Amino acid sequence: MDMDKELFRKFGYKFIDWVTDYLSGLDNFPVRSQVKPGEIRSQLPPEPPGQGESMEKIFQDFKDTIIPGITHWQHPSWFAYFPANNSPPSILAELLTAGIGAQCMIWQTSPAAAELEEVVLEWLRQMLGLPEGMTGVIQDTASTATLVALLTAREKATDFNANQKGLKSPLVVYASEETHSSVEKGVKIAGFGRENLRYIPTDDSFAMIPSKLDEAVEKDKKKGLQPACVVATLGTTSSTAVDPLAPIGEICRRHGLWLHVDAAYAGTAAVLPEKRWILEGAENVDSFVFNPHKWMLTNFDCSAYFVKDPGALIRTFEIHPEYLKTGLDSQVKNYRDWGIQLGRRFRALKLWFVIRSYGVEGLQKIVREHIRFAQMFKEWVEKHEAFELMAPVDFSLVCFRLNDGRNDEVLNDLNKRLLESLNQTGKVFLTHTTLRGKYVIRIAIASRTTQERHVREAWDLITSKAAEILK
Amino acid sequence: MDMDKELFRKFGYKFIDWVTDYLSGLDNFPVRSQVKPGEIRSQLPPEPPGQGESMEKIFQDFKDTIIPGITHWQHPSWFAYFPANNSPPSILAELLTAGIGAQCMIWQTSPAAAELEEVVLEWLRQMLGLPEGMTGVIQDTASTATLVALLTAREKATDFNANQKGLKSPLVVYASEETHSSVEKGVKIAGFGRENLRYIPTDDSFAMIPSKLDEAVEKDKKKGLQPACVVATLGTTSSTAVDPLAPIGEICRRHGLWLHVDAAYAGTAAVLPEKRWILEGAENVDSFVFNPHKWMLTNFDCSAYFVKDPGALIRTFEIHPEYLKTGLDSQVKNYRDWGIQLGRRFRALKLWFVIRSYGVEGLQKIVREHIRFAQMFKEWVEKHEAFELMAPVDFSLVCFRLNDGRNDEVLNDLNKRLLESLNQTGKVFLTHTTLRGKYVIRIAIASRTTQERHVREAWDLITSKAAEILK
Repeated sequence: MDMDKELFRKFGYKFIDWVTDYLSGLDNFPVRSQVKPGEIRSQLPPEPPGQGESMEKIFQDFKDTIIPGITHWQHPSWFAYFPANNSPPSILAELLTAGIGAQCMIWQTSPAAAELEEVVLEWLRQMLGLPEGMTGVIQDTASTATLVALLTAREKATDFNANQKGLKSPLVVYASEETHSSVEKGVKIAGFGRENLRYIPTDDSFAMIPSKLDEAVEKDKKKGLQPACVVATLGTTSSTAVDPLAPIGEICRRHGLWLHVDAAYAGTAAVLPEKRWILEGAENVDSFVFNPHKWMLTNFDCSAYFVKDPGALIRTFEIHPEYLKTGLDSQVKNYRDWGIQLGRRFRALKLWFVIRSYGVEGLQKIVREHIRFAQMFKEWVEKHEAFELMAPVDFSLVCFRLNDGRNDEVLNDLNKRLLESLNQTGKVFLTHTTLRGKYVIRIAIASRTTQERHVREAWDLITSKAAEILK
Repeated sequence: MDMDKELFRKFGYKFIDWVTDYLSGLDNFPVRSQVKPGEIRSQLPPEPPGQGESMEKIFQDFKDTIIPGITHWQHPSWFAYFPANNSPPSILAELLTAGIGAQCMIWQTSPAAAELEEVVLEWLRQMLGLPEGMTGVIQDTASTATLVALLTAREKATDFNANQKGLKSPLVVYASEETHSSVEKGVKIAGFGRENLRYIPTDDSFAMIPSKLDEAVEKDKKKGLQPACVVATLGTTSSTAVDPLAPIGEICRRHGLWLHVDAAYAGTAAVLPEKRWILEGAENVDSFVFNPHKWMLTNFDCSAYFVKDPGALIRTFEIHPEYLKTGLDSQVKNYRDWGIQLGRRFRALKLWFVIRSYGVEGLQKIVREHIRFAQMFKEWVEKHEAFELMAPVDFSLVCFRLNDGRNDEVLNDLNKRLLESLNQTGKVFLTHTTLRGKYVIRIAIASRTTQERHVREAWDLITSKAAEILK
């Protein structure tokens, strides 16, 4: 090593100490960074250094300059978006992954990475109760996995001709009006065209209405268009609504459509027997993604993508340049052909560390506790006369708003002000959405370190800020 | 933390010790893993554990089961593919990144990550001497960056209509016959269709012949097709050939084509004044990618992607879901709109650590030394009567073959046997390619830890194995 071996060890220990203190002292930081746009940039030199600098100095600058500009995703009072949990075993695994520095594009470039990925993804399949025979692969994000699904659906619908000839006639994609923005992005990238994406209306729980899907498919068929793919969501981003897989799957089967399931956040809940109902009808699913990097304590990035027919996936993505051929290609899994990127990090290791460290029961316990917190919070909202619950609470997200009886326009403004006043305290970080045009505050209670007291403190802060605003 | 704080610290130290010993003791490992397909998998339980297991046990299994299945990319005798260098400062930064566990999709979710990315990419632009005004963003891999370029070119060529309507008429993409497979993959994904990708012939140095490009564009125009994008390569994967940017850029400007440059490996060489010639004509480049994770000592994954017009990039990828809107969107860079994935790791940190630790001069020294090794190796090949140099050596890759005067079919077989016999020793790892149908051995001399003696040992091993084979 060019950096002296003992110097590396010394700073390695220091950094371990720093991470240890950081994780156990997160309560002392504001959750959302309090810096203003340009504040960090203005402290950094506009040109790179000619000579090397000492690690001591770099570390000091990291603490002084970078940390104030960090929004602390692992904070116990993180209630924004969905969480991106890490965990001590996952961090330790990431250290080994970085140290080994393997690039895992094909089996030969790291046999253990390829085979561990195969094993751990099969563990995950069992843990969620996905249908036997589904095969898993790690993608970086759910955005990528959904794009991969759309591309495979595109190839399937064109007898694997679009890759060769481009899309000669329009294929149509369906998702609920509450679907994630990555579906629109994927539809554009894959060349379907945004105008061939249909947003299906949702019911009172914000879940896709299957009969409306059926109608939309029929309508397109009559127009001479070719329906190709349905994206169902288990746990929408706005409100964790659950599209009903069983009737949607039946429609897909009847019309010969690819069924992709985006369970990015809520998929983890299927580790609980009492939440397994979300997967009812999964036997008709062609592809399924959920993110261990959200609610399963595994460092971002790590999306688990499962397919019924790996052959269709590989046929969509395989390439055979001479410089990547090996004598073993017929006997092994070369994951470069299972997605978009050629290069791949060794991401199975952290999953292996997490699942083994917590065990299935340990993970169940954590997820169950988060769901209990959300139910508790939901009851507080329902009991409070100035607050209104805005969506069902099936998992660990609660959607609510301040409602003192005025019209929606006024309420939207009030809630926007409430949210900003909460986040400015630095004590919590929550984000918003809109549901049927109403501005709604979301509290996602699923950080690994969140305890009941953090949820109670958040509620106290919310009610006290609300009282100020209503005054 | 659920894992006891002191236990985390204890294993943190242990893992730092392990990484320290690993990196300084890599000479003791076979470079290419010696396991057989299925050997690792067969040692892993087919079901996940119900209860959590101790970190002691997991660490032991990591050492006993996983490590034998690792091909050691950081080994000083790694000569395969291109390297994926890490470095002590980069590993240390990855530890902090994992510990913080931030998801950096937009400015608000970590202002320091967004602003550090902006600053460090500008440093890289200066270090390579890319045109002023080009703006950088980190992508995961060059495959992704090239896809992003193709998509932006697609939108530009259709007045930003393909995203909305799909591709209504064929657009044509051009690259040399030696281009990387990611171009074909990107062309398929983006819906151009493989049949609309033209491979342009190359000259004796395996570089694109500009006049042949011009002819191909004219021919397509006459057919009523719409030429859209040219991908030029600086440092092809097979032989590090350099497509001449100046004449190619002139052709692109004349025909109104997007010019994307794939400099994944060789881009780093532009830190050297004496290699800056590869960028002659860069003022006509629309997008440019190189991989600090290859030759610039930064842990995989980290691709630096530069564009002349960020507006076109953002217009291609932007999405505006309600749950991601913030009050600051007009003042800051939200990198979710600069690529495919929504979620993003904090990858600027490791680049910052690497550039500051080594300084520009330190990085230049390392790259220059690798190039010297390659020149040395090239001379040995040229002087040896049984070996033949197969391509020019501009950087740190040497393409050669054993040639005792027999026909190509026999030689192809001989060289294949030579390569396998070398790799089976575990002492080196090299890979192959084909050039004009000839099987060629590639030696990529660019691992951070490679010293002159490793290159000499490799040559001794090659000549001795060759003598055995020729006997």
